[in-house]
Amino acid sequence: MPSVFTWTVRVYYEDTDAGGIVYYANYLKFFERVRTEWLRALGIHQQDLLERDGVAFVVRSAVIEYVSAARLDDELKLTLSVKKLGRASIQFAQQAWRGDTLLSSADVKVGCIDKASMRPRSLPDMVAAKMQAA
Amino acid sequence: MPSVFTWTVRVYYEDTDAGGIVYYANYLKFFERVRTEWLRALGIHQQDLLERDGVAFVVRSAVIEYVSAARLDDELKLTLSVKKLGRASIQFAQQAWRGDTLLSSADVKVGCIDKASMRPRSLPDMVAAKMQAA
Amino acid sequence: MPSVFTWTVRVYYEDTDAGGIVYYANYLKFFERVRTEWLRALGIHQQDLLERDGVAFVVRSAVIEYVSAARLDDELKLTLSVKKLGRASIQFAQQAWRGDTLLSSADVKVGCIDKASMRPRSLPDMVAAKMQAA
Amino acid sequence: MPSVFTWTVRVYYEDTDAGGIVYYANYLKFFERVRTEWLRALGIHQQDLLERDGVAFVVRSAVIEYVSAARLDDELKLTLSVKKLGRASIQFAQQAWRGDTLLSSADVKVGCIDKASMRPRSLPDMVAAKMQAA
Repeated sequence: MPSVFTWTVRVYYEDTDAGGIVYYANYLKFFERVRTEWLRALGIHQQDLLERDGVAFVVRSAVIEYVSAARLDDELKLTLSVKKLGRASIQFAQQAWRGDTLLSSADVKVGCIDKASMRPRSLPDMVAAKMQAA
Repeated sequence: MPSVFTWTVRVYYEDTDAGGIVYYANYLKFFERVRTEWLRALGIHQQDLLERDGVAFVVRSAVIEYVSAARLDDELKLTLSVKKLGRASIQFAQQAWRGDTLLSSADVKVGCIDKASMRPRSLPDMVAAKMQAA
Repeated sequence: MPSVFTWTVRVYYEDTDAGGIVYYANYLKFFERVRTEWLRALGIHQQDLLERDGVAFVVRSAVIEYVSAARLDDELKLTLSVKKLGRASIQFAQQAWRGDTLLSSADVKVGCIDKASMRPRSLPDMVAAKMQAA
Repeated sequence: MPSVFTWTVRVYYEDTDAGGIVYYANYLKFFERVRTEWLRALGIHQQDLLERDGVAFVVRSAVIEYVSAARLDDELKLTLSVKKLGRASIQFAQQAWRGDTLLSSADVKVGCIDKASMRPRSLPDMVAAKMQAA
């Protein structure tokens, strides 16, 4: 597991808007795909966490810069690195690139909750262990 | 409750694509908003059904025609009528209009399921009664 | 035009995710609907700007806090106020509420661009005049 | 180019709804991704067509059956075959599978339009040639 995790997404019609570019909210979709794939690469499956443990991840905050626009058919390289691993939350630095052009960067803070109560809880031990090992 | 229920939606950037028009899948979102508002007008709240009764509606099939395109800022009038009310399913005829211009029409069949098992079940009595009264 | 503009949105199935709550990226859709309705209330129509003047608004940055979760069928009150009106950009403070519960707040910076070149440009005079008058 | 084209998509949070399953409209997004990838495999790029030739594809009609539900983290295999290649339109048969379980099938009719006028036009010669060769 490298310290920077990368994932590629393609821009489809569904991602664009009438301005001819990727709609701004959709970068948050892309950024979540990467977080999910990073979890998957660590052997952490959110559907299992949700169904078996009643544990979910929720985004607490996001700071996003939109630097350059992406268009239909573009192939984007998404990067993720962990800035801080807390007891009940994780801070990510994420970026979207098209070749050497930075399109967007985001700092995203994700918290762990008990799904039934929606209250914060510490990361399950196995999850924390896998993240620390990475 | 008139035999044709109507609802208005506005087209925002999120609904459009790089072709400059409303993305085709989003008409299914619009059509579901109308079914939800029709249920609400009958006093049927899906979140209550989901949480209290473990009952959900799922779409079984949809037949959609795309006749004319909608654009950013358009105000669409959506119509809904019940074609057939079954024991465990409902068939809707739905249309999207901009003024006198038909944009899209759809026949949508919705079924009732038990959420835990995902298996078909008959409509809850109160739900069926409210629909028959309408 | 009051100094705080408000708009109401309803949460539909399309807005939610498997966690049972509104998907985090969709608040950015809600926040944009409010900005669009605020522009419309000022007599500024984005489709006209796009087609007639080749002018578009793009989001430069967003800082979002997610405080409490929204669920299916919730009615959200969205608020908008202008923090700073620049020559080529506007800074908004936006919030989403369910009754007295704050769900999310965001600072959003929007810039004006020439659609053909995608380069920043000053706000069209009429647009700036309408915003200053508000 | 085989007579059946296949493409794989992963189900993310963004694709699901509060019912815990993939939201019905999102299958149309998946089905379009496959059509786009099929075009790409033929050497046909929609962004080029849009910008250089002013040509776009629009969906004329869709008939969709929802057979079984998909959930978060599922990997879906999407299939596409051309049922009929017309002068100005193409009919596709498309399916979504999870392993051996059919989730959804759709017949989709796509037409070619001149983007400026939004009127039907015949497929560009090179596009038609590449499709016939496939």
